Amino acid sequence: MARVDGRSDDELREVRITRGYQDWPAGSVLVEFGRTRVLCAASVQDGVPRWRVGSGLGWVTAEYAMLPSATNTRGARESVKGRIGGRTHEISRLVGRSLRACIDLAALGENTITLDCDVIQADGGTRTAAITGAYVALADAITWLGAAGKLSDPKPLSCSISAISVGVVDGRVRLDLPYEEDSRAEVDMNVVATDHGTLVEVQGTGEGATYTRSTMDKMLDFALAGCGTLSEAQSAALAEPYPGELPGKRS
Amino acid sequence: MARVDGRSDDELREVRITRGYQDWPAGSVLVEFGRTRVLCAASVQDGVPRWRVGSGLGWVTAEYAMLPSATNTRGARESVKGRIGGRTHEISRLVGRSLRACIDLAALGENTITLDCDVIQADGGTRTAAITGAYVALADAITWLGAAGKLSDPKPLSCSISAISVGVVDGRVRLDLPYEEDSRAEVDMNVVATDHGTLVEVQGTGEGATYTRSTMDKMLDFALAGCGTLSEAQSAALAEPYPGELPGKRS
Amino acid sequence: MARVDGRSDDELREVRITRGYQDWPAGSVLVEFGRTRVLCAASVQDGVPRWRVGSGLGWVTAEYAMLPSATNTRGARESVKGRIGGRTHEISRLVGRSLRACIDLAALGENTITLDCDVIQADGGTRTAAITGAYVALADAITWLGAAGKLSDPKPLSCSISAISVGVVDGRVRLDLPYEEDSRAEVDMNVVATDHGTLVEVQGTGEGATYTRSTMDKMLDFALAGCGTLSEAQSAALAEPYPGELPGKRS
Amino acid sequence: MARVDGRSDDELREVRITRGYQDWPAGSVLVEFGRTRVLCAASVQDGVPRWRVGSGLGWVTAEYAMLPSATNTRGARESVKGRIGGRTHEISRLVGRSLRACIDLAALGENTITLDCDVIQADGGTRTAAITGAYVALADAITWLGAAGKLSDPKPLSCSISAISVGVVDGRVRLDLPYEEDSRAEVDMNVVATDHGTLVEVQGTGEGATYTRSTMDKMLDFALAGCGTLSEAQSAALAEPYPGELPGKRS
Amino acid sequence: MARVDGRSDDELREVRITRGYQDWPAGSVLVEFGRTRVLCAASVQDGVPRWRVGSGLGWVTAEYAMLPSATNTRGARESVKGRIGGRTHEISRLVGRSLRACIDLAALGENTITLDCDVIQADGGTRTAAITGAYVALADAITWLGAAGKLSDPKPLSCSISAISVGVVDGRVRLDLPYEEDSRAEVDMNVVATDHGTLVEVQGTGEGATYTRSTMDKMLDFALAGCGTLSEAQSAALAEPYPGELPGKRS
Amino acid sequence: MARVDGRSDDELREVRITRGYQDWPAGSVLVEFGRTRVLCAASVQDGVPRWRVGSGLGWVTAEYAMLPSATNTRGARESVKGRIGGRTHEISRLVGRSLRACIDLAALGENTITLDCDVIQADGGTRTAAITGAYVALADAITWLGAAGKLSDPKPLSCSISAISVGVVDGRVRLDLPYEEDSRAEVDMNVVATDHGTLVEVQGTGEGATYTRSTMDKMLDFALAGCGTLSEAQSAALAEPYPGELPGKRS
Repeated sequence: MARVDGRSDDELREVRITRGYQDWPAGSVLVEFGRTRVLCAASVQDGVPRWRVGSGLGWVTAEYAMLPSATNTRGARESVKGRIGGRTHEISRLVGRSLRACIDLAALGENTITLDCDVIQADGGTRTAAITGAYVALADAITWLGAAGKLSDPKPLSCSISAISVGVVDGRVRLDLPYEEDSRAEVDMNVVATDHGTLVEVQGTGEGATYTRSTMDKMLDFALAGCGTLSEAQSAALAEPYPGELPGKRS
Repeated sequence: MARVDGRSDDELREVRITRGYQDWPAGSVLVEFGRTRVLCAASVQDGVPRWRVGSGLGWVTAEYAMLPSATNTRGARESVKGRIGGRTHEISRLVGRSLRACIDLAALGENTITLDCDVIQADGGTRTAAITGAYVALADAITWLGAAGKLSDPKPLSCSISAISVGVVDGRVRLDLPYEEDSRAEVDMNVVATDHGTLVEVQGTGEGATYTRSTMDKMLDFALAGCGTLSEAQSAALAEPYPGELPGKRS
Repeated sequence: MARVDGRSDDELREVRITRGYQDWPAGSVLVEFGRTRVLCAASVQDGVPRWRVGSGLGWVTAEYAMLPSATNTRGARESVKGRIGGRTHEISRLVGRSLRACIDLAALGENTITLDCDVIQADGGTRTAAITGAYVALADAITWLGAAGKLSDPKPLSCSISAISVGVVDGRVRLDLPYEEDSRAEVDMNVVATDHGTLVEVQGTGEGATYTRSTMDKMLDFALAGCGTLSEAQSAALAEPYPGELPGKRS
Repeated sequence: MARVDGRSDDELREVRITRGYQDWPAGSVLVEFGRTRVLCAASVQDGVPRWRVGSGLGWVTAEYAMLPSATNTRGARESVKGRIGGRTHEISRLVGRSLRACIDLAALGENTITLDCDVIQADGGTRTAAITGAYVALADAITWLGAAGKLSDPKPLSCSISAISVGVVDGRVRLDLPYEEDSRAEVDMNVVATDHGTLVEVQGTGEGATYTRSTMDKMLDFALAGCGTLSEAQSAALAEPYPGELPGKRS
Repeated sequence: MARVDGRSDDELREVRITRGYQDWPAGSVLVEFGRTRVLCAASVQDGVPRWRVGSGLGWVTAEYAMLPSATNTRGARESVKGRIGGRTHEISRLVGRSLRACIDLAALGENTITLDCDVIQADGGTRTAAITGAYVALADAITWLGAAGKLSDPKPLSCSISAISVGVVDGRVRLDLPYEEDSRAEVDMNVVATDHGTLVEVQGTGEGATYTRSTMDKMLDFALAGCGTLSEAQSAALAEPYPGELPGKRS
Repeated sequence: MARVDGRSDDELREVRITRGYQDWPAGSVLVEFGRTRVLCAASVQDGVPRWRVGSGLGWVTAEYAMLPSATNTRGARESVKGRIGGRTHEISRLVGRSLRACIDLAALGENTITLDCDVIQADGGTRTAAITGAYVALADAITWLGAAGKLSDPKPLSCSISAISVGVVDGRVRLDLPYEEDSRAEVDMNVVATDHGTLVEVQGTGEGATYTRSTMDKMLDFALAGCGTLSEAQSAALAEPYPGELPGKRS
């Protein structure tokens, strides 16, 4: 049974990575996985959260959110509801945790990098696009910090981080699910991996269905291959010169 | 004393209006006043707020917000703080009130149009850009509703709406203030007007200074001329065919 | 078409200003515009908000609220709802901004004056009555601070501040609208002015209607004349000796 | 050891009860116990809380609050804090429970009377003044409901309700404590009683001290006598004709 | 008319006190009054609330809560509702106030003991069981603090504290009401007393009924006798060696 | 390198399952994994959430929480903070999702089962204990519903569900981590599985470390074996007659 968009089961949607999307943050990336578009900004702030003061270590954290107009049916604004939903919390924590896996926090000194991942348009895989784009924004912020003489170690990133979704749809293991597949998937898994092929995070869920160990193995195969392709796209994007003016000019 | 960006005192920054920026909402416009960029989406929802049920009238409302990464220094997310600030409330109400001035709500039937104005990048004048862009998104949503056979009157918009800031900087009346001027203005005024040259809303404030009646008169002159130029830009944008697929295709 | 209460179009309702209404605050004024009654208290507190610490400057801020029983139909208590509504925020900010226009904050040292404006009974024009009464309470608080030896400059008030509403009702420009007129006004404007005849704030709104430049001009004429009368009433009230004991005796 | 204000141990402060203080609510009473002043308004609303719908019974509830400017040192506004404190909750519940003891809720039909008790000035005993004033406002609201033909039983009030504080100060049992005594009392008790001399509520607390059974007995003696005097003051106030126009005229 | 469980009117339900129920807190007690079961934990924390810093005094506070599954019909979780209800606030304050009556806070130094009273199963009398159990947990925490050398006075507890409910059911005064009696009681009173027979707190309420002075006297007689029995049960429990390992081992 | 408690790397802590722990819920289970103790209650309520009304389907949801006294250092109460933390949200969602994998929701009709998992004492693995205990509580609630004639299909559970943690500590893959191991684990994974050996959910995280595909494989081996042992313990517990009275007697 063919996929609606004609891709083969283990094929990614078209990936586009646009650096320097905004003028003020130290890193700002628009990442697109097909119709899914996420704006990932890396802002540098002096100081660290209270529980970390005096440690000499920096901090990297993330906040994920969805514009009300990003989805098919308008979503209520969490600021208006006065509380952040469980899904938002969960993804924010996932993004922060994933990016902390690649960085030596001691090199930052007591500074914080906040990765804001705001979904402009949602069509499945927003959290994996967010992680993939946030890595590029983080890399640009690190370059900016280095240029500003604020790093004790000039190369604090030990690897790159990317993420992809994989699932079982129509009884077949498929990579990078758009909303149309995601909403009817029997199993849904998100995998975060490094460019060395090691795993950072695996979250696999079967709602209304369970899955065998061999399906698990095949999903991991697809996802690790997909992350390999994404890490190449990240490298290619970062090999270009920074577009326009230097980021964070105003600060 | 010349302006930093070389404009004359009564000159607007470059205005760009991009329709069809997102795929799902019935209207979606990226509006730019120089470096200020606001995404304005018009979403159509069945039904009206509880206090209006049974009236036979529709409703138009707005929500304004700022991405944390939109400003020079990262701003805290209002959803995380758990409450909306006074400034956000004030601007959301202004945008909604302004756009309701041009529409016959009876023509909508009991349907609601929500205008989400999310600031992608802030450089002064975000509320006036939001109003100006929201009008274009509203016009596209009205076209979409008409095509869907949901309007009792095919032309419910009686005029167009635009808005501009004006103020006193360095002792001179100036139009369309960027952040650099806005942050040190002695008087700051926002004017919302129609393409007929009538006024919808005037909000003039002198914090730390007061202003004479003749300054007030000159500010109104500049602002009404600026709104005239903006309403031409809106007409020109709306004269183009809708880019790409029809909006709100998925709904 | 005559007004229900028999006033001419440019006439104020009866204004009463009662100083020393409460015993503890440094200034406490009950102001009445006809049936509208607002209790304005000026409380002095050591210290300033965090963002201002170390500046050597004082701060003046305001909080506006409505008793649930003040309105025709009982209003829900904002403390019970757990959040402050947009209208309340907007008016609190307006009152604070307006009063800061008349005071040299350096003279206060790092002290804060909070102006609490609690509406006891609402019949239109509560925000303008609040500003007019808050000025008198502020003046009394300044006298109290001077007597306590806490001012670096004995005359920190450069002018007086008053405010009045004006609007278009039944097609006519009218001053100082009671609820009966306000609720069906085509245009509604609030003007804050000094006793020198200069403007502090102008907020004019046409909901469901727009207005011409010449209507705008006539509304400004009426409002500036009305503020002139109010500033005389403020002077007369402040010319009396402080009633009863000295304010803030207990502190 | 004499009391600061010269009263004997079992003597009340001067009590003043002013009916018709506000124009819109069905009952509105300013009650004063010495310098303590509480505005008690009784508003009638159609319908009952959801858990009571269909019961055929009415509901009486209360909300107590303190103006920020009512106290010696300005108190933070609970609407601004976004939550109601424990003390406010506790007193609101006490007032509602106390007043429900005198009324046949079946006679109201499915209507709600809300008793808003807003403290204008605090000098000890605000909760007992609130209960005493709320009874008078409730009686006026009942008269108003009767005149409007909304009562199934014309006399739904079976008794009157008043309340007083009593405590141990300087080792002596004393009645109706002002702030100066209340703040250093060893034992503090509030008693709510009917004009028949029966008890509705007794709340006695020794913080930092405990008290014997015989002290308890003496406190009850003083309090029941004080409530007797208060119920006479209520009767006298209600024997007067309603001042000015009929309450709730506008509704 | 006999009681459902066969007790005489002045008889307590079976009382069980289990110390050392949890491993980490300095004191942890499961107290049972018949089917009512409350887990009372006393946790020691360095420091005191901000308003007490620098006083040299310690602090004892309490938080009462009910598991959703503790009641007959599942109760909504207050953390999910985002606010604590009036009843919870009221009881938390009662428990804290009651326990502070027996301790010399100066002996603690600037340390805080928090008494968490979590109701595992509710069958009437949860607040009185909480107070009775919290005293035993507090006593164990004091022993732990003494062993850790953190007390300036080795015997800071001047008495023991217990509490019991009493009410009027079927026209008869009865002690220790289970839910079946409590839910239809005409009068409901909670009494907190010391092992010396003095009173700490009396809270008597007649909702829908009032009560005479002689009923009040009889309720106090029953309650003081009941508290006497409870204080013996507390002594007996505390006379046993601490079960298992020392509490708070991990800290 | 041996484990502190002497277990082999693939060995579970002692598991105890106590049914009928509370009297009111339809199922109530205390589950213990070593020192970790979680109370799991299954409450049945008429009706389903609003978005599911009219579907004919039932709903199973879960709420996880931690008593403040459950942890080594007292944790702040989420009801007092006024919001639920990210971790709590995440685990509540995990528990609900996991249990929905074993049940045919159509058989419930439009009824809701809420699984409250309250941690009495925490020593690592609280979420996996919660899932394991919640299954047993759910099974008892299903029996109760069947006895009450409320199931359209008498056997709506298609399998049993259990969960276990596994991680990398001291460079070795280890099963069922207590707090002492969990707090320093390099990789931490939770696995939810059925008694058929299929997977429901896999969540593996390396904070500060990444892990290879072969480590992933070994962790899955250990976890699936552990879940096998847990499902036998569940079966054994459910094979016993229900202790004491029938659950939910009062409802």
